[in-house]
Amino acid sequence: MKKRPLILITNDDGISAKGITALTKAMQPIGDCFVLAPDAPQSGQSHSITVLQPIYLTEISETEDLKRFSCSGTPVDCVKLAVLELMPQKPDLIVSGFNHGSNASINVTYSGTMAAAIEGAMLGIPSIGFSVCDFSHDAVFSHAISFAREIAKDVIENGLPEATCLNVNFPKINNKPLKGIKLSSQGHGGWVEGFEQRKDPRGRNYYWISGNFKNGSTVEGEDLYALENNYVSVQPVSFDFTDNKALELLKERY
Amino acid sequence: MKKRPLILITNDDGISAKGITALTKAMQPIGDCFVLAPDAPQSGQSHSITVLQPIYLTEISETEDLKRFSCSGTPVDCVKLAVLELMPQKPDLIVSGFNHGSNASINVTYSGTMAAAIEGAMLGIPSIGFSVCDFSHDAVFSHAISFAREIAKDVIENGLPEATCLNVNFPKINNKPLKGIKLSSQGHGGWVEGFEQRKDPRGRNYYWISGNFKNGSTVEGEDLYALENNYVSVQPVSFDFTDNKALELLKERY
Repeated sequence: MKKRPLILITNDDGISAKGITALTKAMQPIGDCFVLAPDAPQSGQSHSITVLQPIYLTEISETEDLKRFSCSGTPVDCVKLAVLELMPQKPDLIVSGFNHGSNASINVTYSGTMAAAIEGAMLGIPSIGFSVCDFSHDAVFSHAISFAREIAKDVIENGLPEATCLNVNFPKINNKPLKGIKLSSQGHGGWVEGFEQRKDPRGRNYYWISGNFKNGSTVEGEDLYALENNYVSVQPVSFDFTDNKALELLKERY
Repeated sequence: MKKRPLILITNDDGISAKGITALTKAMQPIGDCFVLAPDAPQSGQSHSITVLQPIYLTEISETEDLKRFSCSGTPVDCVKLAVLELMPQKPDLIVSGFNHGSNASINVTYSGTMAAAIEGAMLGIPSIGFSVCDFSHDAVFSHAISFAREIAKDVIENGLPEATCLNVNFPKINNKPLKGIKLSSQGHGGWVEGFEQRKDPRGRNYYWISGNFKNGSTVEGEDLYALENNYVSVQPVSFDFTDNKALELLKERY
Protein backbone atom coordinates (compact mmCIF):
# COMPACT_ATOMS: atom_id res chain seq x y z
CA MET A 1 0.00 0.00 0.00
CA LYS A 2 1.35 3.43 -0.95
CA LYS A 3 2.14 5.68 1.99
CA ARG A 4 0.04 8.81 2.38
CA PRO A 5 1.93 12.04 1.58
CA LEU A 6 3.23 14.06 4.53
CA ILE A 7 2.10 17.70 4.44
CA LEU A 8 3.49 20.58 6.53
CA ILE A 9 0.96 23.35 7.16
CA THR A 10 1.86 26.82 8.45
CA ASN A 11 0.62 30.41 8.19
CA ASP A 12 1.29 33.94 9.42
CA ASP A 13 -2.03 34.69 11.12
CA GLY A 14 -1.23 32.29 13.96
CA ILE A 15 -2.35 28.84 15.08
CA SER A 16 -5.79 30.09 16.18
CA ALA A 17 -6.74 31.73 12.87
CA LYS A 18 -9.78 30.51 10.97
CA GLY A 19 -7.71 30.30 7.77
CA ILE A 20 -5.31 27.60 8.96
CA THR A 21 -8.20 25.50 10.27
CA ALA A 22 -9.81 25.69 6.82
CA LEU A 23 -6.54 24.83 5.06
CA THR A 24 -6.03 21.84 7.37
CA LYS A 25 -9.53 20.67 6.48
CA ALA A 26 -8.61 21.01 2.78
CA MET A 27 -5.43 18.92 3.20
CA GLN A 28 -6.53 16.13 5.56
CA PRO A 29 -8.19 13.97 2.87
CA ILE A 30 -4.99 13.87 0.79
CA GLY A 31 -2.24 13.39 3.39
CA ASP A 32 -1.00 13.20 6.95
CA CYS A 33 -0.79 16.73 8.28
CA PHE A 34 1.85 18.32 10.52
CA VAL A 35 0.85 21.84 11.58
CA LEU A 36 3.38 24.30 13.01
CA ALA A 37 2.22 27.92 13.10
CA PRO A 38 3.13 31.03 15.09
CA ASP A 39 1.61 31.36 18.59
CA ALA A 40 0.11 34.72 17.64
CA PRO A 41 -0.60 36.76 14.49
CA GLN A 42 2.57 37.76 12.58
CA SER A 43 1.24 39.97 9.78
CA GLY A 44 3.86 41.80 7.75
CA GLN A 45 6.71 39.58 8.97
CA SER A 46 7.94 38.85 5.44
CA HIS A 47 10.96 36.53 5.37
CA SER A 48 12.18 37.45 8.86
CA ILE A 49 13.85 34.84 11.05
CA THR A 50 14.44 34.79 14.80
CA VAL A 51 18.17 34.99 15.40
CA LEU A 52 18.43 37.17 18.52
CA GLN A 53 15.99 35.17 20.68
CA PRO A 54 15.33 31.48 21.27
CA ILE A 55 12.17 29.83 19.91
CA TYR A 56 9.71 28.11 22.26
CA LEU A 57 7.54 25.23 21.00
CA THR A 58 4.06 24.26 22.28
CA GLU A 59 2.26 21.00 21.47
CA ILE A 60 -1.44 21.63 20.82
CA SER A 61 -2.85 18.20 19.91
CA GLU A 62 -1.76 14.94 18.31
CA THR A 63 -3.58 12.14 16.50
CA GLU A 64 -2.08 9.62 14.08
CA ASP A 65 -2.72 11.69 10.97
CA LEU A 66 -2.80 15.24 12.42
CA LYS A 67 -0.15 16.77 14.70
CA ARG A 68 -0.53 20.40 15.74
CA PHE A 69 2.14 22.64 17.27
CA SER A 70 2.68 26.36 17.69
CA CYS A 71 5.88 28.29 18.38
CA SER A 72 7.13 31.74 19.27
CA GLY A 73 8.90 32.16 15.91
CA THR A 74 7.98 33.65 12.54
CA PRO A 75 6.40 31.76 9.61
CA VAL A 76 9.87 31.13 8.11
CA ASP A 77 11.09 29.87 11.50
CA CYS A 78 8.13 27.45 11.50
CA VAL A 79 9.22 25.95 8.18
CA LYS A 80 12.88 25.63 9.20
CA LEU A 81 12.08 24.21 12.66
CA ALA A 82 9.55 21.70 11.32
CA VAL A 83 11.65 20.48 8.39
CA LEU A 84 15.11 20.53 9.96
CA GLU A 85 14.25 19.44 13.49
CA LEU A 86 10.75 18.19 14.25
CA MET A 87 9.29 16.19 11.35
CA PRO A 88 10.06 12.47 11.05
CA GLN A 89 11.01 12.93 7.37
CA LYS A 90 11.07 15.68 4.73
CA PRO A 91 7.48 16.63 3.89
CA ASP A 92 6.12 15.93 0.39
CA LEU A 93 4.43 19.33 0.34
CA ILE A 94 4.41 22.57 2.33
CA VAL A 95 1.26 24.71 2.33
CA SER A 96 0.90 28.08 4.00
CA GLY A 97 -2.38 29.88 4.71
CA PHE A 98 -5.18 30.40 4.10
CA ASN A 99 -3.97 33.94 4.61
CA HIS A 100 -6.66 36.38 5.73
CA GLY A 101 -6.09 38.92 2.95
CA SER A 102 -4.61 39.22 -0.53
CA ASN A 103 -1.04 38.30 -1.35
CA ALA A 104 -1.41 39.37 -4.96
CA SER A 105 0.71 42.11 -6.52
CA ILE A 106 3.23 43.81 -4.25
CA ASN A 107 1.81 42.15 -1.11
CA VAL A 108 4.04 39.14 -1.71
CA THR A 109 6.98 41.30 -0.55
CA TYR A 110 5.56 41.81 2.96
CA SER A 111 3.84 38.46 3.35
CA GLY A 112 4.84 35.94 5.99
CA THR A 113 2.51 33.43 4.32
CA MET A 114 4.42 33.62 1.05
CA ALA A 115 7.81 33.78 2.79
CA ALA A 116 7.04 30.39 4.36
CA ALA A 117 6.32 28.96 0.90
CA ILE A 118 9.49 30.57 -0.53
CA GLU A 119 11.53 29.08 2.34
CA GLY A 120 10.03 25.68 1.47
CA ALA A 121 11.16 26.08 -2.14
CA MET A 122 14.64 27.08 -0.93
CA LEU A 123 14.73 23.79 1.01
CA GLY A 124 13.83 21.94 -2.20
CA ILE A 125 10.27 21.04 -1.15
CA PRO A 126 7.19 21.74 -3.36
CA SER A 127 5.45 24.64 -1.61
CA ILE A 128 2.30 26.70 -2.03
CA GLY A 129 0.98 29.82 -0.29
CA PHE A 130 -2.84 30.18 -0.29
CA SER A 131 -4.60 33.49 0.39
CA VAL A 132 -8.18 34.73 0.28
CA CYS A 133 -8.77 38.43 -0.49
CA ASP A 134 -10.60 39.13 2.77
CA PHE A 135 -8.56 40.68 5.57
CA SER A 136 -11.26 40.21 8.23
CA HIS A 137 -10.82 37.93 11.22
CA ASP A 138 -14.06 36.21 10.21
CA ALA A 139 -13.17 35.72 6.53
CA VAL A 140 -14.97 32.89 4.68
CA PHE A 141 -12.83 30.15 3.12
CA SER A 142 -15.45 27.59 2.01
CA HIS A 143 -15.19 28.51 -1.70
CA ALA A 144 -11.40 27.95 -1.64
CA ILE A 145 -11.20 24.51 -0.04
CA SER A 146 -11.80 22.21 -3.02
CA PHE A 147 -9.60 24.32 -5.36
CA ALA A 148 -6.78 24.31 -2.80
CA ARG A 149 -7.07 20.53 -2.44
CA GLU A 150 -6.93 19.97 -6.23
CA ILE A 151 -3.92 22.28 -6.66
CA ALA A 152 -2.11 20.57 -3.76
CA LYS A 153 -2.86 17.08 -5.16
CA ASP A 154 -1.53 18.09 -8.56
CA VAL A 155 1.67 19.53 -7.04
CA ILE A 156 2.26 16.38 -4.96
CA GLU A 157 1.82 14.22 -8.06
CA ASN A 158 3.63 16.35 -10.65
CA GLY A 159 6.01 18.55 -8.64
CA LEU A 160 6.92 22.12 -9.55
CA PRO A 161 9.63 23.63 -11.77
CA GLU A 162 12.97 24.01 -9.96
CA ALA A 163 13.30 26.81 -7.39
CA THR A 164 9.66 27.85 -7.77
CA CYS A 165 6.72 27.94 -5.39
CA LEU A 166 3.13 28.95 -6.04
CA ASN A 167 1.31 32.07 -4.81
CA VAL A 168 -2.39 31.16 -5.02
CA ASN A 169 -4.97 33.90 -4.37
CA PHE A 170 -8.76 33.54 -4.20
CA PRO A 171 -11.30 36.37 -4.61
CA LYS A 172 -13.37 37.20 -1.54
CA ILE A 173 -16.48 35.01 -1.55
CA ASN A 174 -19.36 36.49 -3.56
CA ASN A 175 -22.63 35.25 -5.02
CA LYS A 176 -21.07 33.87 -8.23
CA PRO A 177 -19.07 30.63 -8.54
CA LEU A 178 -15.33 30.90 -9.22
CA LYS A 179 -14.61 30.70 -12.95
CA GLY A 180 -11.48 28.53 -12.64
CA ILE A 181 -7.73 29.00 -12.41
CA LYS A 182 -5.68 31.68 -14.22
CA LEU A 183 -1.91 31.40 -14.35
CA SER A 184 -0.73 34.95 -13.61
CA SER A 185 2.27 37.22 -13.31
CA GLN A 186 2.63 39.80 -10.53
CA GLY A 187 0.27 42.76 -10.89
CA HIS A 188 1.09 46.40 -10.40
CA GLY A 189 -0.83 47.57 -7.37
CA GLY A 190 0.66 49.35 -4.40
CA TRP A 191 -0.05 50.73 -0.97
CA VAL A 192 -0.83 54.40 -0.45
CA GLU A 193 0.49 54.84 3.04
CA GLY A 194 1.01 57.36 5.74
CA PHE A 195 1.60 57.63 9.45
CA GLU A 196 -0.67 58.80 12.23
CA GLN A 197 1.14 60.65 14.99
CA ARG A 198 -0.26 60.24 18.52
CA LYS A 199 0.84 60.93 22.09
CA ASP A 200 1.11 58.07 24.62
CA PRO A 201 -0.15 58.45 28.24
CA ARG A 202 3.35 59.61 29.23
CA GLY A 203 3.33 62.40 26.64
CA ARG A 204 5.73 60.77 24.20
CA ASN A 205 5.00 60.88 20.46
CA TYR A 206 4.58 57.67 18.52
CA TYR A 207 3.59 56.69 14.98
CA TRP A 208 1.10 54.18 13.59
CA ILE A 209 1.47 53.09 9.99
CA SER A 210 -1.78 53.20 8.03
CA GLY A 211 -2.64 52.69 4.39
CA ASN A 212 -4.93 51.48 1.63
CA PHE A 213 -4.18 49.12 -1.20
CA LYS A 214 -4.68 50.62 -4.63
CA ASN A 215 -4.90 48.51 -7.77
CA GLY A 216 -2.82 49.88 -10.61
CA SER A 217 -3.95 49.21 -14.15
CA THR A 218 -5.23 45.63 -14.27
CA VAL A 219 -3.78 43.92 -17.30
CA GLU A 220 -4.89 40.50 -18.58
CA GLY A 221 -2.36 37.89 -17.50
CA GLU A 222 -1.72 39.57 -14.15
CA ASP A 223 -2.96 38.44 -10.74
CA LEU A 224 -5.14 41.51 -10.03
CA TYR A 225 -6.95 40.98 -13.35
CA ALA A 226 -7.65 37.32 -12.55
CA LEU A 227 -9.02 38.19 -9.10
CA GLU A 228 -11.18 41.04 -10.39
CA ASN A 229 -12.72 38.65 -12.88
CA ASN A 230 -13.50 35.99 -10.25
CA TYR A 231 -10.70 33.58 -11.13
CA VAL A 232 -8.26 31.87 -8.77
CA SER A 233 -4.84 33.42 -9.48
CA VAL A 234 -1.80 31.09 -9.55
CA GLN A 235 1.56 32.91 -9.71
CA PRO A 236 4.85 30.97 -9.88
CA VAL A 237 7.27 32.73 -7.53
CA SER A 238 11.08 32.79 -7.67
CA PHE A 239 13.66 33.68 -5.01
CA ASP A 240 16.19 34.93 -7.54
CA PHE A 241 15.96 38.71 -7.10
CA THR A 242 18.17 39.55 -10.10
CA ASP A 243 16.54 42.07 -12.43
CA ASN A 244 17.67 40.63 -15.77
CA LYS A 245 16.35 43.54 -17.84
CA ALA A 246 18.25 46.01 -15.68
CA LEU A 247 21.33 43.76 -15.86
CA GLU A 248 21.39 44.30 -19.64
CA LEU A 249 20.77 48.03 -19.36
CA LEU A 250 23.50 48.55 -16.76
CA LYS A 251 26.21 46.83 -18.86
CA GLU A 252 26.97 50.21 -20.37
CA ARG A 253 27.78 51.66 -16.98
CA TYR A 254 29.62 48.91 -15.12
CA MET B 1 23.76 77.46 -7.19
CA LYS B 2 22.62 73.85 -7.54
CA LYS B 3 21.15 72.40 -4.35
CA ARG B 4 23.03 69.52 -2.76
CA PRO B 5 21.29 66.14 -3.13
CA LEU B 6 19.31 64.87 -0.12
CA ILE B 7 20.33 61.35 0.93
CA LEU B 8 18.44 59.03 3.31
CA ILE B 9 20.70 56.57 5.14
CA THR B 10 19.46 53.50 7.01
CA ASN B 11 20.62 49.98 7.92
CA ASP B 12 19.59 46.84 9.81
CA ASP B 13 22.44 46.62 12.31
CA GLY B 14 21.10 49.63 14.22
CA ILE B 15 22.07 53.27 14.69
CA SER B 16 25.16 52.42 16.78
CA ALA B 17 26.75 50.04 14.25
CA LYS B 18 30.16 50.85 12.81
CA GLY B 19 28.83 50.21 9.29
CA ILE B 20 26.31 53.06 9.23
CA THR B 21 28.91 55.49 10.58
CA ALA B 22 31.23 54.50 7.71
CA LEU B 23 28.43 54.81 5.13
CA THR B 24 27.51 58.27 6.47
CA LYS B 25 31.18 59.27 6.10
CA ALA B 26 31.04 58.02 2.49
CA MET B 27 27.91 60.06 1.68
CA GLN B 28 28.56 63.38 3.47
CA PRO B 29 30.82 64.85 0.75
CA ILE B 30 28.15 64.35 -1.93
CA GLY B 31 24.92 65.38 -0.19
CA ASP B 32 22.94 66.43 2.87
CA CYS B 33 22.35 63.32 4.95
CA PHE B 34 19.24 62.26 6.88
CA VAL B 35 19.90 59.14 8.97
CA LEU B 36 17.05 57.04 10.39
CA ALA B 37 18.06 53.58 11.60
CA PRO B 38 16.65 51.03 14.04
CA ASP B 39 17.37 51.61 17.76
CA ALA B 40 18.95 48.15 18.02
CA PRO B 41 20.26 45.42 15.70
CA GLN B 42 17.56 43.89 13.45
CA SER B 43 19.41 41.11 11.65
CA GLY B 44 17.24 38.77 9.59
CA GLN B 45 14.25 41.13 9.60
CA SER B 46 13.83 40.94 5.81
CA HIS B 47 10.96 43.08 4.53
CA SER B 48 9.00 43.03 7.79
CA ILE B 49 6.97 46.04 8.87
CA THR B 50 5.59 47.01 12.27
CA VAL B 51 1.80 46.85 12.08
CA LEU B 52 0.81 45.49 15.50
CA GLN B 53 2.79 48.04 17.57
CA PRO B 54 3.40 51.78 17.36
CA ILE B 55 6.81 53.13 16.37
CA TYR B 56 8.77 55.46 18.70
CA LEU B 57 11.23 57.96 17.27
CA THR B 58 14.38 59.31 18.98
CA GLU B 59 16.41 62.32 17.80
CA ILE B 60 20.14 61.66 18.13
CA SER B 61 21.80 64.79 16.73
CA GLU B 62 21.19 67.54 14.20
CA THR B 63 23.43 69.85 12.19
CA GLU B 64 22.56 71.66 8.97
CA ASP B 65 23.80 68.89 6.66
CA LEU B 66 23.45 65.81 8.92
CA LYS B 67 20.34 64.83 10.88
CA ARG B 68 20.39 61.57 12.84
CA PHE B 69 17.38 59.72 14.27
CA SER B 70 16.66 56.20 15.45
CA CYS B 71 13.34 54.41 15.89
CA SER B 72 11.82 51.25 17.31
CA GLY B 73 10.82 49.97 13.85
CA THR B 74 12.39 47.72 11.24
CA PRO B 75 14.62 48.87 8.35
CA VAL B 76 11.58 49.03 6.03
CA ASP B 77 9.68 51.06 8.65
CA CYS B 78 12.64 53.47 8.70
CA VAL B 79 12.34 54.08 4.96
CA LYS B 80 8.55 54.53 5.06
CA LEU B 81 8.63 56.78 8.14
CA ALA B 82 11.46 58.96 6.82
CA VAL B 83 10.10 59.37 3.28
CA LEU B 84 6.35 59.60 4.04
CA GLU B 85 6.49 61.57 7.29
CA LEU B 86 9.77 63.06 8.45
CA MET B 87 11.86 64.34 5.54
CA PRO B 88 11.28 67.83 4.16
CA GLN B 89 11.13 66.45 0.61
CA LYS B 90 11.56 63.14 -1.22
CA PRO B 91 15.23 62.11 -1.01
CA ASP B 92 17.34 61.97 -4.19
CA LEU B 93 18.90 58.70 -3.04
CA ILE B 94 18.40 56.05 -0.36
CA VAL B 95 21.42 54.07 0.84
CA SER B 96 21.31 51.21 3.32
CA GLY B 97 24.31 49.74 5.14
CA PHE B 98 27.15 49.14 5.29
CA ASN B 99 25.76 45.81 6.39
CA HIS B 100 28.08 43.80 8.61
CA GLY B 101 28.06 40.63 6.50
CA SER B 102 27.36 39.44 2.97
CA ASN B 103 24.06 40.05 1.20
CA ALA B 104 25.19 38.13 -1.87
CA SER B 105 23.37 35.05 -3.13
CA ILE B 106 20.38 33.88 -1.10
CA ASN B 107 21.13 36.31 1.76
CA VAL B 108 19.16 39.02 -0.03
CA THR B 109 15.98 37.13 0.98
CA TYR B 110 16.61 37.52 4.72
CA SER B 111 18.30 40.92 4.63
CA GLY B 112 16.81 43.98 6.28
CA THR B 113 19.51 46.07 4.60
CA MET B 114 18.36 45.04 1.14
CA ALA B 115 14.66 45.20 2.10
CA ALA B 116 15.17 48.90 2.91
CA ALA B 117 16.67 49.46 -0.56
CA ILE B 118 13.84 47.47 -2.19
CA GLU B 119 11.27 49.55 -0.30
CA GLY B 120 13.01 52.67 -1.62
CA ALA B 121 12.68 51.38 -5.18
CA MET B 122 8.99 50.61 -4.54
CA LEU B 123 8.59 54.27 -3.54
CA GLY B 124 10.20 55.29 -6.83
CA ILE B 125 13.48 56.52 -5.29
CA PRO B 126 16.93 55.40 -6.54
CA SER B 127 18.17 53.05 -3.80
CA ILE B 128 21.29 51.03 -3.02
CA GLY B 129 22.12 48.47 -0.33
CA PHE B 130 25.83 48.23 0.60
CA SER B 131 27.30 45.22 2.42
CA VAL B 132 30.79 44.10 3.39
CA CYS B 133 31.42 40.33 3.70
CA ASP B 134 32.48 40.50 7.34
CA PHE B 135 29.84 39.63 9.94
CA SER B 136 31.92 40.82 12.92
CA HIS B 137 30.90 43.74 15.09
CA ASP B 138 34.34 45.24 14.41
CA ALA B 139 34.27 44.80 10.62
CA VAL B 140 36.52 47.13 8.58
CA PHE B 141 34.84 49.34 5.96
CA SER B 142 37.71 51.62 4.85
CA HIS B 143 38.24 49.81 1.50
CA ALA B 144 34.54 50.26 0.61
CA ILE B 145 34.10 53.99 1.24
CA SER B 146 35.38 55.51 -2.02
CA PHE B 147 33.69 52.84 -4.18
CA ALA B 148 30.38 53.39 -2.38
CA ARG B 149 30.69 57.16 -2.89
CA GLU B 150 31.38 56.76 -6.64
CA ILE B 151 28.48 54.34 -7.14
CA ALA B 152 26.13 56.66 -5.21
CA LYS B 153 27.28 59.71 -7.22
CA ASP B 154 26.68 57.87 -10.47
CA VAL B 155 23.18 56.77 -9.38
CA ILE B 156 22.26 60.32 -8.31
CA GLU B 157 23.41 61.65 -11.68
CA ASN B 158 22.13 58.91 -13.99
CA GLY B 159 19.32 57.21 -12.06
CA LEU B 160 18.54 53.51 -12.25
CA PRO B 161 16.33 51.42 -14.55
CA GLU B 162 12.66 51.41 -13.47
CA ALA B 163 11.69 49.33 -10.44
CA THR B 164 15.31 48.31 -9.75
CA CYS B 165 17.66 48.88 -6.84
CA LEU B 166 21.28 47.83 -6.43
CA ASN B 167 22.70 45.18 -4.12
CA VAL B 168 26.39 46.10 -3.73
CA ASN B 169 28.68 43.67 -1.89
CA PHE B 170 32.35 44.16 -1.00
CA PRO B 171 34.83 41.39 -0.15
CA LYS B 172 36.17 41.38 3.41
CA ILE B 173 39.27 43.58 3.52
CA ASN B 174 42.47 41.73 2.60
CA ASN B 175 46.01 42.67 1.62
CA LYS B 176 45.22 43.17 -2.08
CA PRO B 177 43.46 46.19 -3.61
CA LEU B 178 39.93 45.66 -4.97
CA LYS B 179 40.04 44.90 -8.72
CA GLY B 180 36.99 47.01 -9.63
CA ILE B 181 33.25 46.51 -10.11
CA LYS B 182 31.57 43.41 -11.60
CA LEU B 183 27.90 43.56 -12.59
CA SER B 184 26.50 40.29 -11.26
CA SER B 185 23.45 38.06 -11.08
CA GLN B 186 22.42 36.25 -7.89
CA GLY B 187 24.73 33.35 -7.00
CA HIS B 188 23.69 29.91 -5.81
CA GLY B 189 24.88 29.56 -2.25
CA GLY B 190 22.75 28.55 0.68
CA TRP B 191 22.67 28.06 4.42
CA VAL B 192 23.24 24.67 5.99
CA GLU B 193 21.21 25.07 9.12
CA GLY B 194 20.02 23.27 12.16
CA PHE B 195 18.63 23.92 15.62
CA GLU B 196 20.21 23.52 19.02
CA GLN B 197 17.81 22.37 21.69
CA ARG B 198 18.41 23.67 25.23
CA LYS B 199 16.55 23.85 28.55
CA ASP B 200 15.81 27.22 30.17
CA PRO B 201 16.25 27.77 33.95
CA ARG B 202 12.59 26.82 34.42
CA GLY B 203 13.07 23.47 32.66
CA ARG B 204 11.31 24.38 29.42
CA ASN B 205 12.84 23.38 26.07
CA TYR B 206 13.75 26.03 23.55
CA TYR B 207 15.52 26.14 20.19
CA TRP B 208 18.32 28.28 18.77
CA ILE B 209 18.76 28.46 15.04
CA SER B 210 22.38 27.96 13.91
CA GLY B 211 24.00 27.59 10.53
CA ASN B 212 26.84 28.13 8.12
CA PHE B 213 26.78 29.69 4.69
CA LYS B 214 27.98 27.40 1.92
CA ASN B 215 28.94 28.68 -1.53
CA GLY B 216 27.46 26.60 -4.31
CA SER B 217 29.36 26.41 -7.59
CA THR B 218 30.73 29.87 -8.31
CA VAL B 219 30.02 30.75 -11.92
CA GLU B 220 31.48 33.79 -13.72
CA GLY B 221 28.84 36.53 -13.86
CA GLU B 222 27.43 35.69 -10.42
CA ASP B 223 27.95 37.64 -7.21
CA LEU B 224 29.84 34.91 -5.34
CA TYR B 225 32.34 34.66 -8.21
CA ALA B 226 32.94 38.41 -8.20
CA LEU B 227 33.54 38.45 -4.44
CA GLU B 228 35.85 35.42 -4.48
CA ASN B 229 37.94 37.18 -7.11
CA ASN B 230 38.22 40.41 -5.10
CA TYR B 231 35.74 42.47 -7.13
CA VAL B 232 32.90 44.66 -5.85
CA SER B 233 29.67 42.88 -6.87
CA VAL B 234 26.79 45.05 -8.16
CA GLN B 235 23.48 43.15 -8.60
CA PRO B 236 20.36 44.91 -9.94
CA VAL B 237 17.45 43.71 -7.80
CA SER B 238 13.76 43.51 -8.73
CA PHE B 239 10.65 43.25 -6.57
CA ASP B 240 8.67 41.34 -9.19
CA PHE B 241 8.71 37.79 -7.78
CA THR B 242 7.17 36.18 -10.89
CA ASP B 243 9.20 33.20 -12.11
CA ASN B 244 8.85 33.75 -15.86
CA LYS B 245 10.53 30.47 -16.82
CA ALA B 246 8.13 28.54 -14.57
CA LEU B 247 5.22 30.60 -15.96
CA GLU B 248 5.96 29.16 -19.41
CA LEU B 249 6.41 25.60 -18.11
CA LEU B 250 3.17 25.68 -16.11
CA LYS B 251 1.03 26.75 -19.08
CA GLU B 252 0.52 23.05 -19.86
CA ARG B 253 -1.05 22.48 -16.45
CA TYR B 254 -3.18 25.54 -15.77
